[in-house]
Amino acid sequence: MNKGRVEAFSDGVFAFAITLLVVTIAQPNDYQHLAAELGRRWPALAAYVVSFSTIGIMWLNHHSIFGHFAGVDRRLVYLNLLLLMTLAFLPYPTEVLGQALARGDARTAAVVYGATMTANAAAWTALWLYASTRRRLLQPAFPESERRTATLLFNAGSLAYAAAIGVAFVDAYAFLAVQGALAVYYAFDPLSRRVQRRMEEREVAASGAATAPEASGRD
Amino acid sequence: MNKGRVEAFSDGVFAFAITLLVVTIAQPNDYQHLAAELGRRWPALAAYVVSFSTIGIMWLNHHSIFGHFAGVDRRLVYLNLLLLMTLAFLPYPTEVLGQALARGDARTAAVVYGATMTANAAAWTALWLYASTRRRLLQPAFPESERRTATLLFNAGSLAYAAAIGVAFVDAYAFLAVQGALAVYYAFDPLSRRVQRRMEEREVAASGAATAPEASGRD
Amino acid sequence: MNKGRVEAFSDGVFAFAITLLVVTIAQPNDYQHLAAELGRRWPALAAYVVSFSTIGIMWLNHHSIFGHFAGVDRRLVYLNLLLLMTLAFLPYPTEVLGQALARGDARTAAVVYGATMTANAAAWTALWLYASTRRRLLQPAFPESERRTATLLFNAGSLAYAAAIGVAFVDAYAFLAVQGALAVYYAFDPLSRRVQRRMEEREVAASGAATAPEASGRD
Amino acid sequence: MNKGRVEAFSDGVFAFAITLLVVTIAQPNDYQHLAAELGRRWPALAAYVVSFSTIGIMWLNHHSIFGHFAGVDRRLVYLNLLLLMTLAFLPYPTEVLGQALARGDARTAAVVYGATMTANAAAWTALWLYASTRRRLLQPAFPESERRTATLLFNAGSLAYAAAIGVAFVDAYAFLAVQGALAVYYAFDPLSRRVQRRMEEREVAASGAATAPEASGRD
Repeated sequence: MNKGRVEAFSDGVFAFAITLLVVTIAQPNDYQHLAAELGRRWPALAAYVVSFSTIGIMWLNHHSIFGHFAGVDRRLVYLNLLLLMTLAFLPYPTEVLGQALARGDARTAAVVYGATMTANAAAWTALWLYASTRRRLLQPAFPESERRTATLLFNAGSLAYAAAIGVAFVDAYAFLAVQGALAVYYAFDPLSRRVQRRMEEREVAASGAATAPEASGRD
Repeated sequence: MNKGRVEAFSDGVFAFAITLLVVTIAQPNDYQHLAAELGRRWPALAAYVVSFSTIGIMWLNHHSIFGHFAGVDRRLVYLNLLLLMTLAFLPYPTEVLGQALARGDARTAAVVYGATMTANAAAWTALWLYASTRRRLLQPAFPESERRTATLLFNAGSLAYAAAIGVAFVDAYAFLAVQGALAVYYAFDPLSRRVQRRMEEREVAASGAATAPEASGRD
Repeated sequence: MNKGRVEAFSDGVFAFAITLLVVTIAQPNDYQHLAAELGRRWPALAAYVVSFSTIGIMWLNHHSIFGHFAGVDRRLVYLNLLLLMTLAFLPYPTEVLGQALARGDARTAAVVYGATMTANAAAWTALWLYASTRRRLLQPAFPESERRTATLLFNAGSLAYAAAIGVAFVDAYAFLAVQGALAVYYAFDPLSRRVQRRMEEREVAASGAATAPEASGRD
Repeated sequence: MNKGRVEAFSDGVFAFAITLLVVTIAQPNDYQHLAAELGRRWPALAAYVVSFSTIGIMWLNHHSIFGHFAGVDRRLVYLNLLLLMTLAFLPYPTEVLGQALARGDARTAAVVYGATMTANAAAWTALWLYASTRRRLLQPAFPESERRTATLLFNAGSLAYAAAIGVAFVDAYAFLAVQGALAVYYAFDPLSRRVQRRMEEREVAASGAATAPEASGRD
């Protein structure tokens, strides 16, 4: 199992899924009253923006997590496929939600979107638990103190996405806003920042010299 | 002929085909009764999961097999294109089967899906026979004793997929379950495991020292 | 943050978006009078050619700009995602414009296309401003004298795309021609040429020897 | 201009276009009489096989040609984009031809397919003429004697594809067969074989020792 090829394959699925999202916005039916037709499509555009951000930020975090792995084995690849399966499915609920917000049962659509994201969060948690339990696939440099925190954060993430389904039952617009907020939360990736800080502190302690912040470093 | 670029191109086709599968699930027609509409689509979702797993696991095994090749030549590239052609075609029978299970002649759809998978299995067998006959493209380290077993397993695989067409004539749901089971069988990839074990035994015998299992190793 | 993987992901999105453009040309409805049906689709073909050129040339310039960066950080990756989001959205207005030119309210369609390109130009400007301010992510070799010019050119580009929306309100065909002309302008990439020339002059001055033009060099 | 990234981008477009071909086969309308519906789709399947083979073999030859280039410059990249534009357009005439063969004006559809392939062949010829004139971008090792032959073969290819349009006016099935035959012709890639042979002869002459044929060599 070569880690690089697993990452490249995952990158391909991420890049394709994110680009495929554009087909989720329905083409106009009436080209004579185009402005009105397009105006009614703003929920589909909002769903596009939220799903695009979600996949983009998830790609970035996939990157960070795999950077902490010393290698991959078959089981991890299968858990990664599960993660990609739920991710590659996202264009479907995105289209359903965008349409339903404009002209249908938006709450059901939001529940389906929320269920997809919850399945995805569960796949992330499973991937992390498998790789981190007894430090199975972790880099030696990954700080032990952060392992527990990371496990907690992954479990909390799954719960947050499950809780968002509750919001879906109340209001689909509020649900979409919550999904956007969760994406923004993960954009700040508290886990990577903490780990990075710890690893730098350790280096400093070990070498007795401050490492200069570099443009190419993780910030 | 550069092996790396053939692998990268194949990875691209695998990644796009697996991501394209999501468009095989038909969008709802009636957004007022969305829950009922989506509920009727569960066969399409089941077909999606089976095809996604099949392509994902096949990608992984493509990886393993190419790892045993010392290099590639033009003929192998054409056999690989044949394999990719049958693979890239899979979204079509997936969509037909998902729709037919819900509202049509599901047995015909299952036969078409089974025929596609049989053609794919035959392409795999042809690829293996070409590369392994007189060890044409095999790595020197590939154990001779495993070559015969591998040939047997590839032929058995073709027969198994052909036999599954027989199940398609009886019941389309049973057929889909068989396809899922075959994917799970290949997930365990008995061939790679055996070869790996042999190659480790040899190393041990040669060096007189046990090689420690590594996180980055094939498991 | 690894610059290479950000570039590879971006390349993936560029390559998929450019290939996906072909689905923006509607299939014929009447296959008995195919010649006439296809003939009426020439505006869609024109929009295809303009969007394909735009994405292709933008890919090339993405390449050049990233070549001037010493590295990337999370904020740049987010600005790059914004750029990719507006870019990956382009197939939508391309299809709308191609259809509207043939049978509808073409000016509204052109305005939507123009707004997408203006958002894209703004994302480019934001990316450049972030990376170049106080030379945050620039290569040490990037000439300081060119930094100001580049900033000016990026801002001018945003203005030019915004001005093109004005043309859209007047005539959609003129608008499409302007978009084609802007693509051609960026094909010549005045920025890269100037920077390249300066960097060569510097090398010459430093080493006292002229560097021979190479086939593999940027021309 | 980095040759590797141009090749990787081109590979992405090739891989995506080849995988997208599957959407050119129309889904059934009547799932009750599925066998009859699918049976009527065999021309679309034939068009799929021909286009898949054409793109796959073209990818392989793109590979070979770029292997003879010492580097790339901006003009070559634009000619390569032109080549990719005509190539990425192929799914459109493939779908039109597949449908028209079953139920419409197949000759017009064949002419459109033929025109696309002729434009593609012209882009190939332009790419070659630009790169080979005065050996602008050729590897030093590329034999001068083969340069003229290659130019002849590229021009002949353009003429052959143009002549195939004539066949399209007579019979669309004959046209499809001719396209398949041309793909097979390019599969044997006489140019690469000749060049390879010459380069080996030279090496032998230079070193006085025969180079052993290798599994990883171009065959």
